[in-house]
Amino acid sequence: MGEDGKISGKVTLAEVARVAGVSLPTVSKVVNGRSDVSPVTRAKVERALEAHGYRRRPRNPTRPALLELVFHELESIWAMELIKGVEQVARENHATVVLTVSGTRHAPGPEWLEGVLKRRPLGVVLVFSTLPGDVRARLRSASVPFVVVDPAGDPDPDVPSVGSANWAGGLAATRHLTARHHRRIAIITGPQDMLCSRARLDGYRSAMAMASLDVDPRLVRFGDFHVQGGFDHAMSLLDGPDRPTAIFAGSDLQALGVLEAARLKGLRVPQDLSVVGYDDVPLAQWSSPPLTTVHQPLRRMAEEASRMLFGPEESGKAAQRIELATHLVERQSTAPPSA
Amino acid sequence: MGEDGKISGKVTLAEVARVAGVSLPTVSKVVNGRSDVSPVTRAKVERALEAHGYRRRPRNPTRPALLELVFHELESIWAMELIKGVEQVARENHATVVLTVSGTRHAPGPEWLEGVLKRRPLGVVLVFSTLPGDVRARLRSASVPFVVVDPAGDPDPDVPSVGSANWAGGLAATRHLTARHHRRIAIITGPQDMLCSRARLDGYRSAMAMASLDVDPRLVRFGDFHVQGGFDHAMSLLDGPDRPTAIFAGSDLQALGVLEAARLKGLRVPQDLSVVGYDDVPLAQWSSPPLTTVHQPLRRMAEEASRMLFGPEESGKAAQRIELATHLVERQSTAPPSA
Repeated sequence: MGEDGKISGKVTLAEVARVAGVSLPTVSKVVNGRSDVSPVTRAKVERALEAHGYRRRPRNPTRPALLELVFHELESIWAMELIKGVEQVARENHATVVLTVSGTRHAPGPEWLEGVLKRRPLGVVLVFSTLPGDVRARLRSASVPFVVVDPAGDPDPDVPSVGSANWAGGLAATRHLTARHHRRIAIITGPQDMLCSRARLDGYRSAMAMASLDVDPRLVRFGDFHVQGGFDHAMSLLDGPDRPTAIFAGSDLQALGVLEAARLKGLRVPQDLSVVGYDDVPLAQWSSPPLTTVHQPLRRMAEEASRMLFGPEESGKAAQRIELATHLVERQSTAPPSA
Repeated sequence: MGEDGKISGKVTLAEVARVAGVSLPTVSKVVNGRSDVSPVTRAKVERALEAHGYRRRPRNPTRPALLELVFHELESIWAMELIKGVEQVARENHATVVLTVSGTRHAPGPEWLEGVLKRRPLGVVLVFSTLPGDVRARLRSASVPFVVVDPAGDPDPDVPSVGSANWAGGLAATRHLTARHHRRIAIITGPQDMLCSRARLDGYRSAMAMASLDVDPRLVRFGDFHVQGGFDHAMSLLDGPDRPTAIFAGSDLQALGVLEAARLKGLRVPQDLSVVGYDDVPLAQWSSPPLTTVHQPLRRMAEEASRMLFGPEESGKAAQRIELATHLVERQSTAPPSA
């Protein structure tokens, strides 16, 4: 539950009020996340709070202990794994998970901030690429610690975050194929505007270079991380005589689309076509054939992020970035090319 | 948010105290879910509260508005669909979802009750077959409404619940196959101790009888609702010359196991073997080939359950049971037998 400061909250707040040149009740309002404070005053108080390294007060024991997880959508196949990780750490800390859905891929919506300041969770795990500065400031002054889980691989240096090794994952997937003597290897990576897509693609390029193989630009595709993108690109890649003998599919869902395209083209996996996925979500082991894929430790990423909230004080420290390792899981969708 | 009673909370509580022969603070403790009341006194107060049809007081607006969803496990492929349904209704009612994991398939653990009485959610949606009487009594006296989402099809008549039409689903799946002139149709239903497994099996039997087909007892199997159960039974069913031309797999996960068994046996789906799933979880459309399956409206079941919590007063009314319809979704895993 973190440590409660050596300096009592009261002394610190009075001092903060003096430095900021405002009344104690005003400081108290800012700390309690109330919205009836002018933006100018709030900013002054927040600066003073930060300068004093103000720390969380002991919790009111009658309030429920909540740990909040914020998504911009629940549709993602990642969501359940992340929920399980947060739930595990909440349970260890006798807290309960609050699940909110808000905003876009980049940041939660403005209405979310009012809500979270009312809920006063022990901490917040956000599944976003970043967090606007004003949201960070208000969470910090209300002593609500936060951390971003960032599977998109696009961390903001000012926000503590947990990601995973996308470049190394792309490298491992492609080396698995070059080691099995594939030479025409296609990649369907994710959307062009996501850093994780580019990191996986660069890992692919390095593995190809390490095997002294040229990259045929017609075999490099940007998908959408969904089944349809994998299917559409595979239908086009597998059309014609010069088709690849292996496809690194960039995500497990895209790999499922590739499997379906192979079935429609009458190609057997892995005899006629090898397929490597990415993520290792539960369904990867249930596909026909079970997928060789890169394990992205989504559940552990959520666990690590949650544990950071319960660690020793975060204020005053530089924002932390943890990157967890990825590794290849070999199942039955890959083999040496038959030709 | 429901309606607040016509009788003010105060008058009712004083009256309840008088009838129960206890002090007003004691009644207040019971209503507020505190545990420092003897079981005997609590039972007396709860009886009096029930007799008076005591209704929820207006909520304290400084408390966060929470809607609680309780699972016994998050592993189920159903979990995400149910979460989405509850989240939808929470959002409409300006509430936030709390997710708890507790207990067994049959009831939440004892520690859960203390926690929920502290959280004081607007209501609780439980994914269980039933709820012990003492848990129901304590939730009722603390004015925390509850409803059970029951995909297992085993409702307790004293608990409001939402289920779906399992028998009709089994009938629809099997009729789809008999209408395509299959005669040797196997079923892998769920575990023997779940009513939904039996209801689906009875639907299968009726469809077979309606098509004047005898049921070969060797073609009737009880699985585990997981991929492995479907795989193991299919490997045995597809062994030998007298194999079925169609398998109703009882769940989508079992259907995935059947697809993998067919692949290993060198059988094409649907040309050599038709497969029907059950549930229509998102992955059903991503399998190779996409699964013909019975749509169980899990998301809508969770929505309906959540809406019951926000409906007009529940106390004094008979426990409600809603059963939503199921329907067949035809995709590409079924066709007439080729022989």
